[in-house]
Amino acid sequence: MAKSPEIEHPSKAFGWAARDTSGLLSPFNFSRRATGEKDVTFKVLFCGVCHSDLHMVKNEWGSSIYPLIPGHEIVGVVTEVGSKVQKFKVGDKVGVGCMVGACHSCDNCDNNLENYCPKMILTYGAKYYDGTITYGGYSDTMVSDEHFVVRIPDNLPLDASAPLLCAGITVYSPLRFYGLDRPGMHVGVVGLGGLGHVAVKFAKAMGVKVTVISTSPNKKKEALEHLGADSFLVSKDQDQMQAAQGTMDGIIDTVSAQHPLLPLIGLLKTQGKLVMVGAPEKPLELPVFPLLMGRKLLGGSCFGGMKETQEMIDFAAKHNITADIEVIPIDYVNTAMERLLKADVRHRFVIDIGNTLKSSN
Amino acid sequence: MAKSPEIEHPSKAFGWAARDTSGLLSPFNFSRRATGEKDVTFKVLFCGVCHSDLHMVKNEWGSSIYPLIPGHEIVGVVTEVGSKVQKFKVGDKVGVGCMVGACHSCDNCDNNLENYCPKMILTYGAKYYDGTITYGGYSDTMVSDEHFVVRIPDNLPLDASAPLLCAGITVYSPLRFYGLDRPGMHVGVVGLGGLGHVAVKFAKAMGVKVTVISTSPNKKKEALEHLGADSFLVSKDQDQMQAAQGTMDGIIDTVSAQHPLLPLIGLLKTQGKLVMVGAPEKPLELPVFPLLMGRKLLGGSCFGGMKETQEMIDFAAKHNITADIEVIPIDYVNTAMERLLKADVRHRFVIDIGNTLKSSN
Repeated sequence: MAKSPEIEHPSKAFGWAARDTSGLLSPFNFSRRATGEKDVTFKVLFCGVCHSDLHMVKNEWGSSIYPLIPGHEIVGVVTEVGSKVQKFKVGDKVGVGCMVGACHSCDNCDNNLENYCPKMILTYGAKYYDGTITYGGYSDTMVSDEHFVVRIPDNLPLDASAPLLCAGITVYSPLRFYGLDRPGMHVGVVGLGGLGHVAVKFAKAMGVKVTVISTSPNKKKEALEHLGADSFLVSKDQDQMQAAQGTMDGIIDTVSAQHPLLPLIGLLKTQGKLVMVGAPEKPLELPVFPLLMGRKLLGGSCFGGMKETQEMIDFAAKHNITADIEVIPIDYVNTAMERLLKADVRHRFVIDIGNTLKSSN
Repeated sequence: MAKSPEIEHPSKAFGWAARDTSGLLSPFNFSRRATGEKDVTFKVLFCGVCHSDLHMVKNEWGSSIYPLIPGHEIVGVVTEVGSKVQKFKVGDKVGVGCMVGACHSCDNCDNNLENYCPKMILTYGAKYYDGTITYGGYSDTMVSDEHFVVRIPDNLPLDASAPLLCAGITVYSPLRFYGLDRPGMHVGVVGLGGLGHVAVKFAKAMGVKVTVISTSPNKKKEALEHLGADSFLVSKDQDQMQAAQGTMDGIIDTVSAQHPLLPLIGLLKTQGKLVMVGAPEKPLELPVFPLLMGRKLLGGSCFGGMKETQEMIDFAAKHNITADIEVIPIDYVNTAMERLLKADVRHRFVIDIGNTLKSSN
């Protein structure tokens, strides 16, 4: 029988975990492995609250293992490195995103696409190489193979850069891969949540003309004045949508709720690309004719590999891109989850782990 | 009021037309325009029976105009050319495919993608520049601007090359555009109808490993022994499909009936491409998660531009690629349509217009 999470590893650790599908988070004592030869151990200072965390604490994707400590937008300061660690030293500002392991021998790994490795290990709620369960960043410490650690450049604030590790790479990678990063292009961003607002910033920094597409007319001011989008479309406004038909080279669709694809496909130019980065639970309706008539495509993308994640962070540092955040104490996290469910946040909660997570031990 | 089709143009013509949504074809006197400066007029010798013809004669896509003469896989011999025609002369073997007009000034036209021009004019059932209705190749003569005429190389038999003008380009173009044409790649072809069987031949000629995916186990021998496919999957056989998961660089899906996409997406490698060239009338169910997890894409493609159509025909000539056909007389066409509806043809009906279409006048 497996040891309890509290004693299976030598290093005591403390975090907040969900215990069942209620998703309610509460204090939890567990343990982390000792710093291995290639491991970086760091004190967690901030952790973003991703929409995936909400799905995972409630087991909505069916893969959750309880107790579950969420969090995969984790930043902090290195406290110990293994003897064979080459890229990091104590005191470095670092981060860990969505994954902590991969096979390192498949085609995807060879091509810096560890995120698509069939044996990729998620940062929390997954089985690590040694069979123990991975725990995320709603906790005081983190240990990771240095391959999955990124350096946070000095000019980036730690709190507001944490969300880049999932939200940032999730939108940056498809902008690059699908070739929607060329100056003068016109790209739509559907949804202005954690992913969408960062997508606007990255696309603008790439020199792209950005149109935000949203169901909420009241996000217009924010999109145009605060985020710097070039235009704004209310997706329910038929006239606006009609006028914008055939104008976009691509669309980054960040919406994970059920939504119609046909109006979005209509916005694309010939050979335009609709890229899904949100993950609706049920299949969407796909009208095939409109894809055929314009040689359009619908593609998916799922965060990014480690090389590209570091590239993204460095690009963010160069262009002063961070997430818009609301910093919260850990004991607010259950309320934050409820607000996130209602999209009541501009645009990402980040937990101040360093100052507010205190073990009762 | 518009003149009747019989007298609106100076040249008498004769074909078979559908008069209503019964789709029943019957003899029909009409007229074609005189050969214009840039026009090529040719005696039609053969015309393929495309699945689109079946939809169009019954107005299943809602755009049909009656009387409707179908046929957009048209080949014959030039009888007259206009004074400014540069590429063709009397006696040349030529063909016309799916379109006979475009704007020649939009981005798509500038990029040899007249097929995606918003003002593209279909070969039949559409309004020509002069407001008259276009009539297809189930008729004795054809007139077309030379831009939309292709040369049929001498080594290709006219009857069996007719289907290349729609079926051929419809599968050739996506193999090229989506980069599924590199030797050593593994491409799936779904469906072994008019499009599918030609897709196998083109892909094999490009050096690609081809797997045919079909609901009918009894097509295996044909696929492997006759068409030269490398392997065969019965799509309803879970074990076979499971064993082939993640093995294909791309799939050309020629099926226009409702069918599940999830099993096909599963066959793709990371970054694999599922290309739809059939046009199901109702939306298909698209599971988004599997696209995300492998950065896979689903794209559409709709025949091809004129430059590429000529390239395709020349490639076919070089590699001795033609369609497998059943040549029929015109008075068999209604029966052929019924058989086509049941997929009872190997693999394309071609009407022997030259020898069997006789005006009763």
